Amino acid sequence: MTDTPTRRTPVAESQRQHPDDAFTFDEVRLAARNHAMPLEALRYPLTPAGLHYLLIHYDIPDLDAAAWRLEIDGAVERRLTLSLEDLKRRPAVTAPVTLECAGNGRALYVPHPVSQPWITEGIGTAAWTGAPLAPILDEAGIAPAAIEVLFTGADLGVEGGEVQHYARALPRVEALLPGVLLAYAMNGEPIPPQHGFPVRLLVPGWYGMTHVKWLRRITALAQPYTGYQNAHVYRMRTREDDPGTPVTRMVPRSLMEPPGIPDFATRDRVVAPGDCELRGRAWSGWGPITRVEVSTDGGQHWHPAALGDALADYAWRPWTYLWHAEPGSHDLCSRATDATGRAQSMLAPWNLGGYMNNSVQHLVVVVAAEQTASA
Amino acid sequence: MTDTPTRRTPVAESQRQHPDDAFTFDEVRLAARNHAMPLEALRYPLTPAGLHYLLIHYDIPDLDAAAWRLEIDGAVERRLTLSLEDLKRRPAVTAPVTLECAGNGRALYVPHPVSQPWITEGIGTAAWTGAPLAPILDEAGIAPAAIEVLFTGADLGVEGGEVQHYARALPRVEALLPGVLLAYAMNGEPIPPQHGFPVRLLVPGWYGMTHVKWLRRITALAQPYTGYQNAHVYRMRTREDDPGTPVTRMVPRSLMEPPGIPDFATRDRVVAPGDCELRGRAWSGWGPITRVEVSTDGGQHWHPAALGDALADYAWRPWTYLWHAEPGSHDLCSRATDATGRAQSMLAPWNLGGYMNNSVQHLVVVVAAEQTASA
Repeated sequence: MTDTPTRRTPVAESQRQHPDDAFTFDEVRLAARNHAMPLEALRYPLTPAGLHYLLIHYDIPDLDAAAWRLEIDGAVERRLTLSLEDLKRRPAVTAPVTLECAGNGRALYVPHPVSQPWITEGIGTAAWTGAPLAPILDEAGIAPAAIEVLFTGADLGVEGGEVQHYARALPRVEALLPGVLLAYAMNGEPIPPQHGFPVRLLVPGWYGMTHVKWLRRITALAQPYTGYQNAHVYRMRTREDDPGTPVTRMVPRSLMEPPGIPDFATRDRVVAPGDCELRGRAWSGWGPITRVEVSTDGGQHWHPAALGDALADYAWRPWTYLWHAEPGSHDLCSRATDATGRAQSMLAPWNLGGYMNNSVQHLVVVVAAEQTASA
Repeated sequence: MTDTPTRRTPVAESQRQHPDDAFTFDEVRLAARNHAMPLEALRYPLTPAGLHYLLIHYDIPDLDAAAWRLEIDGAVERRLTLSLEDLKRRPAVTAPVTLECAGNGRALYVPHPVSQPWITEGIGTAAWTGAPLAPILDEAGIAPAAIEVLFTGADLGVEGGEVQHYARALPRVEALLPGVLLAYAMNGEPIPPQHGFPVRLLVPGWYGMTHVKWLRRITALAQPYTGYQNAHVYRMRTREDDPGTPVTRMVPRSLMEPPGIPDFATRDRVVAPGDCELRGRAWSGWGPITRVEVSTDGGQHWHPAALGDALADYAWRPWTYLWHAEPGSHDLCSRATDATGRAQSMLAPWNLGGYMNNSVQHLVVVVAAEQTASA
């Protein structure tokens, strides 16, 4: 298999030399608050809670589980108020789900849109346990006229000059899918404060902004929602005057666990010569991953990787590829294709918000002449 | 009480306008890997594991607790090899300990030294459980001639062009202090992979670089250690040709839990008018915190805060101050003094490595004219 790459310069190198290589103090502050998953954590099928990515729009709210209530209102026959105990008494579902920030890869766009400057690590997979949402909306008697469902969190802040609780609406048909959960456990433990304690929404396959944390209210809407997080951000557009199209499900992406050992400051990597098993994980919100290919020459030639079993329908799928590492510099890449035929881009289209950057990852490594880099 | 501030411009504002306000791609990548503690987490006496700060020089090693062994060698009468079970069979001590990265505040120095760009959040407090080190060194028969003790981790990487396991030496007298632990639990759970699983060193009062993670070897040395992490970095110096002095214990610092609500992108804050309890925590590695003062005018006037009880000798001490918030912009500050008389600086002295920046935090907030900012 061959492919014509649209960009032969490794991303890391091109970024270092590019005049765009300047980030502001505000961006660095966001990068500090919002935790990425260090890529070596791709080794874990389920990401430990403290390594799972985090994007928090405002502050982590201080919520008391005993006092917490979930209101279900709007275009319903019966308003419901549920406690955490009410939710836990319902039939529970546990599902491993891969989450990715819609802005993952933002810092690699040229020029990079100014917001949380993710490189490639705005990801994680956890086993989430909760009560399916559809039966709850059934019990409330969601009106036939309800076309969207709005989810509102307890977190309060300012964005675009507007004081707001974080809130996002989903089309009715998506909200009623059987996999949608009101989750109260992460990897078998109560959800940590930063991941939405006590209850967050889980919509398997969708980008991270959908899974509203610190959930407090669910409102059935007979009109399209026009709030900030749906109408002003999380939209694909290239001009300010373009309303754009909404960001929804995750496009395919594969990431590689960096082989060898890193330099502290640059993260440049040195690999020992000889056989080296390249490993990674791939996911898509549109359908199962059916193919992962690996290139060791920056995308000029591609080779099929061996696929392991995905943890679940909406969790990443592991892959491996045995590489014989010869001394020199190598640009390692992988790319994923899903069952719908969607494939990862060599270079995803730039957009104003810096969303959906599933450009192929370039991992430039130097293979040492001798065996100096074994751990 | 009054004081003459050396810098009246709020830090955040001055940083935004300063030509130094440019960070590289490599710095942003470090900020993504190395997790800060969001300041609202100052509300927790013990920081939840996923919110505690993290600074990882190389990669998180993949260690098997059953196969893990700790070697004790060098200038000792008897070399020892201990398993995790051996450590757990020994008398255990649990102590809440505040950790701070030696580079915390680096991004606020002007110009900022290039490395992990911490702002103020390279901190956390956890309850660590482990076996005291001194009896183990006694059992090994540490030689009278041993003047330092070297701690080597399993993490391998490149730094300053040198392939190395992360390793740091301590003066013998510090290593033998009764509070020094070989810790295997954090907040009552096995230490998460990123915090040093299965065993890390804990030296209460010292900056973070001391608490070697993924510990594998302890070596008693009859000569001063000249390895990279002691001789080349973690030293206070202002010129490359100055050997400098070692960074050791944490100087006093107080941080405030940001009141009100934040703007997503800028983290600018809006506070409701009226009574507002300001809260924070203060610590020092040299002695108990004896005084915290608060200023609401950028350091022109100082008022005593009320002190709560510290969790332990080497854990932060909570403080509160009731502020009557009037509409307008206010620069909120706090500063700590410890029992040795060491006090926090308005502006800590710049140094090449960007260490020990305990400059007073400036938290600029806008008090709204009306009650719009309550959570």
